[in-house]
Amino acid sequence: MLQGTIFQFEKEVQWENAGNGVQRQVFGYDDKVMLVKAKFEKGGVGALHSHPHSQVTYVESGEFEMTIGDEKKIIRKGDGYYVPPHIIHGCVCTQEGLLIDAFSPCREDFLP
Amino acid sequence: MLQGTIFQFEKEVQWENAGNGVQRQVFGYDDKVMLVKAKFEKGGVGALHSHPHSQVTYVESGEFEMTIGDEKKIIRKGDGYYVPPHIIHGCVCTQEGLLIDAFSPCREDFLP
Repeated sequence: MLQGTIFQFEKEVQWENAGNGVQRQVFGYDDKVMLVKAKFEKGGVGALHSHPHSQVTYVESGEFEMTIGDEKKIIRKGDGYYVPPHIIHGCVCTQEGLLIDAFSPCREDFLP
Repeated sequence: MLQGTIFQFEKEVQWENAGNGVQRQVFGYDDKVMLVKAKFEKGGVGALHSHPHSQVTYVESGEFEMTIGDEKKIIRKGDGYYVPPHIIHGCVCTQEGLLIDAFSPCREDFLP
């Protein structure tokens, strides 16, 4: 069974370069769920993609032009979104910021 | 099948009083996952409790004395934690702030 650490401290977890102006910290996880921090430069891009996981996200800071299926919205600090499995989604970061993503099941492709 | 809205906007989602100096906004969810914002006053308490859900949390702001099983740590903005199913956990808020909780499966007890 997969299981990460109980506590995660920002200063101790490595930032990984996810490309396109995005860096990622993988936080808590087990088989069923994973929390990931995605830090975007202004102009950073989450290219349109899909995955079998359900995803819920919180906008911790910044501003994003977010596309989910055929909906496009501007979202800012305090807002959030849900991506059903297999639905195409992506974003452009219009003010630098941080997205808090949770996936179910675990994004095993984000583990070493 | 359970499924909430695709987008959640902070100004449109009701805050619910969760007691002990804690307010809650339920954000995105389906059967497998749910994201919840938990806003704590200084001195607010998340009483020790357990549930069958896996939980991953991000500290969006503030400072918390967090107990998970037999570990107790001080956590602040940028940090996070993971709670395995059925493990007793709770916190005291030492500087007002916001926790971003994700649960798997959905916390159906948080739905109307």
